[in-house]
Amino acid sequence: MAGIDSVSIVGTGNVAHHLGKAFRDAGFTISDVFGRNSASANELADLLECSVAPTLNELSGDLVLLCVSDNAVIDLASRISENRRLAYTSGSIPLSSLPNRFFCGVFYPLQTFSKNREINITTVPFLVEGNSVQHESELMKLASKISQHVQSANSSDRLHYHISAVFVNNFVNHLFSKGKAHVEEHGLDWEVLKPLIFETIGKISDLDPLDAQTGPAVRKDEQTIERHLRELEGKSKEIYTLITQSIQQSSKK
Amino acid sequence: MAGIDSVSIVGTGNVAHHLGKAFRDAGFTISDVFGRNSASANELADLLECSVAPTLNELSGDLVLLCVSDNAVIDLASRISENRRLAYTSGSIPLSSLPNRFFCGVFYPLQTFSKNREINITTVPFLVEGNSVQHESELMKLASKISQHVQSANSSDRLHYHISAVFVNNFVNHLFSKGKAHVEEHGLDWEVLKPLIFETIGKISDLDPLDAQTGPAVRKDEQTIERHLRELEGKSKEIYTLITQSIQQSSKK
Repeated sequence: MAGIDSVSIVGTGNVAHHLGKAFRDAGFTISDVFGRNSASANELADLLECSVAPTLNELSGDLVLLCVSDNAVIDLASRISENRRLAYTSGSIPLSSLPNRFFCGVFYPLQTFSKNREINITTVPFLVEGNSVQHESELMKLASKISQHVQSANSSDRLHYHISAVFVNNFVNHLFSKGKAHVEEHGLDWEVLKPLIFETIGKISDLDPLDAQTGPAVRKDEQTIERHLRELEGKSKEIYTLITQSIQQSSKK
Repeated sequence: MAGIDSVSIVGTGNVAHHLGKAFRDAGFTISDVFGRNSASANELADLLECSVAPTLNELSGDLVLLCVSDNAVIDLASRISENRRLAYTSGSIPLSSLPNRFFCGVFYPLQTFSKNREINITTVPFLVEGNSVQHESELMKLASKISQHVQSANSSDRLHYHISAVFVNNFVNHLFSKGKAHVEEHGLDWEVLKPLIFETIGKISDLDPLDAQTGPAVRKDEQTIERHLRELEGKSKEIYTLITQSIQQSSKK
C-alpha cells in the first residue's frame, strides 16, 4: 500500500484546528473535513482550503484522522469503512479497545490546544502507535512532517503520559484559576503574580521539582498554614489542605 | 532621620542570599550579616563581601532586614534594640503582630528563590509596608534600588497575595513533582512533558485560566477520568479526584 499523501480530518475542535493548520502550513494535502456541526465544519474547511464531506464514508484522504473527544472515538471508528486507514488523537483510549480493522493507529499530540492561541507544532511531542508495523511507520512519517519530536509509544505508555499531562497542565491551570480568583475576590491585581508563575516554570528547566519546592508546607510552617486556611473556604480550602499534606509526605527535607 | 544607606541582613537562607546579591550588584552597601549557623553566615558574608556580626545588636546597617522563616520573625524582632530600623521579608505575618517599635516594616519579594538558580530581581514585585509614612517611604526607596515593581501593600493584601502565591507556585510545583514521579514510576521520560508545561504557562500571558482549561475534567469525560483513577493511588488519587471536582464546579462550559 502506498504512503499517506493526504489526510481527512474528522472533528472541528481545538485539535482538528491546530493539526489541520500544521498540515496546511507544512504543504501537506488535507482532502476534506467532516463534523457534526456543519457551520464549524465549513469554517474549518475555509481555513484549511478544502471541502466538507457530506458523510464519513465520503471522506477521500489516504488517512482518516479522528480529532474528536475521547468518548466519540470508538463510535466514529465503527462507522468508518473497514478498509480505510484510520488514526485517532486521544491520549487515554487503548488501541485494543477499537473495533478490529486493517489499519488503525494513534496520532497523539502531547500538548494543550486553545483556538485563540497559536502554537509551534514542531516542538510538540507526538506519540504514535499502529496496529501493524507498516501503519505505525506511515503514521511516524506523517507526524515527522509537522513535528521534530515523534516517538512510538504503546497504549499503556501513552496512558501514563496522559495522566501526567493532566497533573502538569489541566490541574496546574486550575490552580492558576484558583490563585486568580483569590486575589480578584480581594480586589487585588492578578498581574502581580505573573513573574512568580514564570519563575515557577523557569525552575523546571534546571531543577528537579522536588528540590525546587518552597513555601509553608515544605517548611512545615504550621502558623502560616493556619493563617492561610482561615482565609479560605470550599474547594480552595480542601485543595490547600490536601496538597499541603501531600507536599509534606513527599518532602525530602 | 537620614535615609537608608546600608543594610544588615539577618538570616542565611535563599531570601538572604538573593536579596543580598541584589543589593551588592546594585552597588548598595551591605554592612554585615548575622545567622545562627556560623558556617552559613561566613559563607554569605564572603559572597557579599561584608563582615559577620557576632550578635544581633552589633549589626551596624541603617536597616536590619530579617530574611528568616516566618516563625522566627517575631522572636528575632523582639531581640533587636527598639531604636533600630527594622523590616522583614515574610508574606503572611501582619505588621501589627510584631512588638511595638519606632520603625518596623515589611519588604516582601513575591517570588520563589532557590540557591542554585539565578533570578532577575528587577522583575520581582516587592510589597512594602511601614508602621510610619516615613519608614514606608524609605523602604519603598530601598526596594526601588533593586526592583522596577515596587508597591505599597497593607498586611491583609499581602496575606492574600501570599495565599495566591502558594497556589500558583508551591502547589503547582508539587503537581510537577507528582507528574514527574508518575512517568518515572512507569519508566517513561519526564522531558516529554516539558513542551506541555511551557505552553501551560505560555497561555497565562494571554488567556484567562478559566478559558484556557482543557482536559477530561472540564469536558466531563467520565470514561477517561475512570481510566486515569484506576492507575492512581494514595495522595495522587486524592488530588486527582478533588481537583477534577473543583474544575467541574468552576467550569464556565
